[in-house]
Amino acid sequence: MKFATLRDGTPDGRLVLVSPDGTRCAAAPAATMQELIERWDTLADICRAQNEFPDTLDSTMLAAPLPRAWQWLDGSAFESHGELMKQVFGNAPDHSDVPLMYQGMSDRFYGPHDDIPVPSEDLGIDFEGEFGVVVDAVPMGTSPEDALRHIRLIVQINDWSLRALAGPEMKTGFGWVQAKPACSMAPIAVTPDELGDQWRDGRVCLDLLVDWNGKRFGTPNGTSMSFGFHRLIAHAARTRALPAGTIIGSGTVSNSNYREIGSTCIAERRGIEIVDSGAPKTEFMRFGDTVRMEGRRADGSAPFGVIEQRVVRA
Amino acid sequence: MKFATLRDGTPDGRLVLVSPDGTRCAAAPAATMQELIERWDTLADICRAQNEFPDTLDSTMLAAPLPRAWQWLDGSAFESHGELMKQVFGNAPDHSDVPLMYQGMSDRFYGPHDDIPVPSEDLGIDFEGEFGVVVDAVPMGTSPEDALRHIRLIVQINDWSLRALAGPEMKTGFGWVQAKPACSMAPIAVTPDELGDQWRDGRVCLDLLVDWNGKRFGTPNGTSMSFGFHRLIAHAARTRALPAGTIIGSGTVSNSNYREIGSTCIAERRGIEIVDSGAPKTEFMRFGDTVRMEGRRADGSAPFGVIEQRVVRA
Repeated sequence: MKFATLRDGTPDGRLVLVSPDGTRCAAAPAATMQELIERWDTLADICRAQNEFPDTLDSTMLAAPLPRAWQWLDGSAFESHGELMKQVFGNAPDHSDVPLMYQGMSDRFYGPHDDIPVPSEDLGIDFEGEFGVVVDAVPMGTSPEDALRHIRLIVQINDWSLRALAGPEMKTGFGWVQAKPACSMAPIAVTPDELGDQWRDGRVCLDLLVDWNGKRFGTPNGTSMSFGFHRLIAHAARTRALPAGTIIGSGTVSNSNYREIGSTCIAERRGIEIVDSGAPKTEFMRFGDTVRMEGRRADGSAPFGVIEQRVVRA
Repeated sequence: MKFATLRDGTPDGRLVLVSPDGTRCAAAPAATMQELIERWDTLADICRAQNEFPDTLDSTMLAAPLPRAWQWLDGSAFESHGELMKQVFGNAPDHSDVPLMYQGMSDRFYGPHDDIPVPSEDLGIDFEGEFGVVVDAVPMGTSPEDALRHIRLIVQINDWSLRALAGPEMKTGFGWVQAKPACSMAPIAVTPDELGDQWRDGRVCLDLLVDWNGKRFGTPNGTSMSFGFHRLIAHAARTRALPAGTIIGSGTVSNSNYREIGSTCIAERRGIEIVDSGAPKTEFMRFGDTVRMEGRRADGSAPFGVIEQRVVRA
């Protein structure tokens, strides 16, 4: 099943069921994505039975599939990215048996085509291509094995980052507030079965194609997470129950052959440049710059649709 | 004005207006605290005109005044606490011109008399007595001066902490997830004018009385914040708009004469013990332990009511 949320002037928008080809939609049996997730056991079969999609999916009306959530916990599960950042910046000590995770702002997720307002170009404006999952209510102490069964939907995320603020905030040990403004989501949230065998072991085994100002920037694959999403969920739920609609992120998608296939964030490319030549060459984003992100199946289709956005002065 | 929320089986509960003496209540013109904050400009005058309180405020029905919020950002604004923690644990580098702040879980705040479930006594169970403010919608880039005008309510918070997990999470630079389960709130949220001249310069100038298992543990005053709440709000809003109902915390209330007046968290007392005698003597909480917290005016009254809770096995 595929879902999207259309703008209707309310913070949560209006949920729709999306046709298999992603072009058409039908009213959903819940008003909002949050309600769908909360009442999943009752509503999923009704959604699954839907096979008529009377309306055209209007791409100009697309909000994030979950426009706000009670919780957003972002991991950093790609070891090639983490190791490089550690090598270059010396932070994030060895922690390889425990997932890295922070809590970010969740009261707003930008839609896939929204302009992104930032106060200044001096803040080190960067994108971060990620996959994420949306869970139903997860009890405190849930095991990784059980956590897999709580994954209701998979999403694609751009975790906007302000790198000039990220380092100083990280050094405090308190994590990021100013360095992590609202994220964006691709328009379509899909059930795991939509990915077939490209949803494996709690991982989204798709290439994530990232273009910056129309030029290919990276194409890493989501398979190489050190921890699957079920491990990330269990980590998050160790001392807290997770409310329905909690979103868990993978962290920047990255593969160890990043010199060949590129990256999904500028910070990683700059890290490679520092390792290779002692200094970064690539600058961060400027006002007017665009980024495009598309998770792609082996057959070339894009189950989440496309994020395509522009950075503007706040 | 004073407000409380009564349990009614829903996540947001039912908002009531509370009488000046804190014993009686009346229906509020908004169903929930979240709605009140979102519609403050319309509803505040209606609330202010209320002078009949037909119902007894049933203390067994009290939820947190805001039982869940879209955002909880906790500062660490008491320098005597921060400096001691730095001295003992070596974390949180000098950062004295910028507030320290992390984002914590906000999908649930415990009520003032709820039992607190924790998975294990080995996690270093600790309380943290704090004051907090609830703001209406704050635009990105709001100045500290303007931020003062967005403070609608003041609350009293127990920021539960699991110290055995806090150090390792802090070292990652990602901040706390497992170390910070849900917080608790005292039953009454008050408008700043309720505190008279004990609301000064964005600070709650009240003593916070903390008892652990019936024994006085600390009585520091909220005046000595290095940054007033208006500075904390402006810090939070530098790169993001804050949604109505965002809660901003002061961090552990602490005064530099903590050897005389005690502390509002066990970690601070243990820090003092480490400084004074090389090792901590005070153990963390056990299952069955209780903590009581009461912010008190000079006249002995408690504007927020009382937090009184017990730790139990999850």
